[in-house]
Amino acid sequence: MQHPENDAKYTGLKVNAGVTSSPSVNPYRKVVRKKRILTPGEYVEGILKGDVSLLGRAVTLIESTADEHQAVAQEVIEKCLPYSGNSRRIGITGVPGAGKSTSIDVFGTHVVKQGHKLAVLAIDPSSERTNGSILGDKTRMEKLSLEKDAFIRPSPSSGSLGGVARKTRETIVLCEAAGYDRIFVETVGVGQSETAVHSMVDFFLLIQLAGTGDELQGIKRGIMEMADGIAINKCDGDNIQRCQIAAQQFRTALMLFPPTPSKWVPEVVTYSGYYEIDIDKVWDMIDRYFDYVTANGYFERKRNEQARYWMTETIEEQLRARFYHTPGIRELLEQKELRVLNNEQSSFIAANDVLDYYFKSIKSL
Amino acid sequence: MQHPENDAKYTGLKVNAGVTSSPSVNPYRKVVRKKRILTPGEYVEGILKGDVSLLGRAVTLIESTADEHQAVAQEVIEKCLPYSGNSRRIGITGVPGAGKSTSIDVFGTHVVKQGHKLAVLAIDPSSERTNGSILGDKTRMEKLSLEKDAFIRPSPSSGSLGGVARKTRETIVLCEAAGYDRIFVETVGVGQSETAVHSMVDFFLLIQLAGTGDELQGIKRGIMEMADGIAINKCDGDNIQRCQIAAQQFRTALMLFPPTPSKWVPEVVTYSGYYEIDIDKVWDMIDRYFDYVTANGYFERKRNEQARYWMTETIEEQLRARFYHTPGIRELLEQKELRVLNNEQSSFIAANDVLDYYFKSIKSL
Repeated sequence: MQHPENDAKYTGLKVNAGVTSSPSVNPYRKVVRKKRILTPGEYVEGILKGDVSLLGRAVTLIESTADEHQAVAQEVIEKCLPYSGNSRRIGITGVPGAGKSTSIDVFGTHVVKQGHKLAVLAIDPSSERTNGSILGDKTRMEKLSLEKDAFIRPSPSSGSLGGVARKTRETIVLCEAAGYDRIFVETVGVGQSETAVHSMVDFFLLIQLAGTGDELQGIKRGIMEMADGIAINKCDGDNIQRCQIAAQQFRTALMLFPPTPSKWVPEVVTYSGYYEIDIDKVWDMIDRYFDYVTANGYFERKRNEQARYWMTETIEEQLRARFYHTPGIRELLEQKELRVLNNEQSSFIAANDVLDYYFKSIKSL
Repeated sequence: MQHPENDAKYTGLKVNAGVTSSPSVNPYRKVVRKKRILTPGEYVEGILKGDVSLLGRAVTLIESTADEHQAVAQEVIEKCLPYSGNSRRIGITGVPGAGKSTSIDVFGTHVVKQGHKLAVLAIDPSSERTNGSILGDKTRMEKLSLEKDAFIRPSPSSGSLGGVARKTRETIVLCEAAGYDRIFVETVGVGQSETAVHSMVDFFLLIQLAGTGDELQGIKRGIMEMADGIAINKCDGDNIQRCQIAAQQFRTALMLFPPTPSKWVPEVVTYSGYYEIDIDKVWDMIDRYFDYVTANGYFERKRNEQARYWMTETIEEQLRARFYHTPGIRELLEQKELRVLNNEQSSFIAANDVLDYYFKSIKSL
């Protein structure tokens, strides 16, 4: 599908890009403050023109929990869908301390210098609870936040992982419709969010350090087998040799893994985010991947599988949410759990008792 | 909890053990043929005495889909629960060709010779569809099937993975109540069933061969990080050196993984199932594991987590089953999927339309 930005009628209308939360550069400042909701058509028109301010405001609607915002947001998404899909979606993860922010800053700048428009999104369901750093925060990406072709958006911070992930995924649609042809989705490497990210990106990059055992403490088990590429950071100065040894160890480890569904053999490269060494090596690897999966048809197949996955996932998450939010269910579950742990009742009987209660509740509504 | 077999009043009543499907050694042969359902109390009494025939018949009820069988089965399980838990549950997996049957045959014989009572169960939801070998089939375990202290039961072959897994888990309860203090749960290493097995055993053993890449083709990604131990089979003759090299490679790979929740460092050993070489090395590793997790409290904690997991899992599986079996849902899902794949509707809107239909259907029932 042709991107509207490539149509002559849109190209003249491009507005200054940049980060979204800077009301001082926004001519409609008062309007933004009052948060007047535009019509879906107005948002869509703005997004298709590449209007960063309207894009940002539409994303805010996606992130809102208010019903009237959601209604507009969903219509905007639906109208943007036909213009979405024309991007390379890259998931980036790594433990805290691996240097994700610095890396994304230089990776992003590299990509923008190549002439691409880049959106940096994030999934971090824990950010609100822990008051930790909010992923994707532009203050962590000094160089990139100065680039007009970079749109940086922190993680939606409220709600369940499923909810946060959905919002990020819907934001991808809007960004693509706005002409962003490179999407980064950042995530911490410690939780359940990697699976969610893995199912919305084309390439999954794991940032590692030249450490073993305890240094990997926080990282989620299983994540290495999700990676399409491993990039070992901080390969500079007297750390170079350790990094090269680590790279060789990771290569050996990956050899022991079964082939990936794409048949792509995950690669291991070294670089230094801080000193900007070998950034192009990382990016060459990612380019090779896209050439490979485009040629063998896996790119298309995976995108379709992901669309199916998200539909199913949304359904099943809603089924669970309806259940767990039914009044009385939490208390009943706690009682039953005690009985199960005391070997007084089997998990199956306990589960069925709770289900009976639930389905009776639904019918009586 | 004291096992009833250790009580004086039961010890005189032990009947001849062996495999279950041998009506010729059963004095109640006609009764078995007519499949008369006993009362739950009769099954439980027999099971607590270690009566293999009644144990086998009770397991058959667990596997049955008939409502009247399930009702009795659930009562039997509930009554056996207080006598369950006193065993070491060991999951065993590996790709076809890794020599699982031979290995379980010699591992099992080894365990029985040590004075334990062993139940060999299996999870293989695919066995019916593929007409493949039904895991746990006693004909594949020649030595073990002659041991009176071994109870071998093929995989329940019908139903969903969730259903099959539940039946296996419930069978564990009955076997433990019948005095089996070692449980093997076998699974093929190629599907989704490893996660189910992993969540019902204490120790998860991965049987590997000294091969890399293509030879691991069939195995599920992520499985290596689930393993508490890797045993490399066929370490005999001119294959010894390759196995030792492979063992070292696996050790290096495991070192790159983050620590396990138990803090146990997964070990890699080599053995030969066929030539019965170093079987004790495999078993020493497993014993070390149990000493370790018993001492640090992880054993107990994991058992409790598993009980909670199975209750939650049963609930969520039933929520899904009710949804997918609602008349009209399949067709609606197919229509919606097409729209999603054609970018005509977002996954979220499509999912919500289907959910609306579902909840209206439930209420009108």
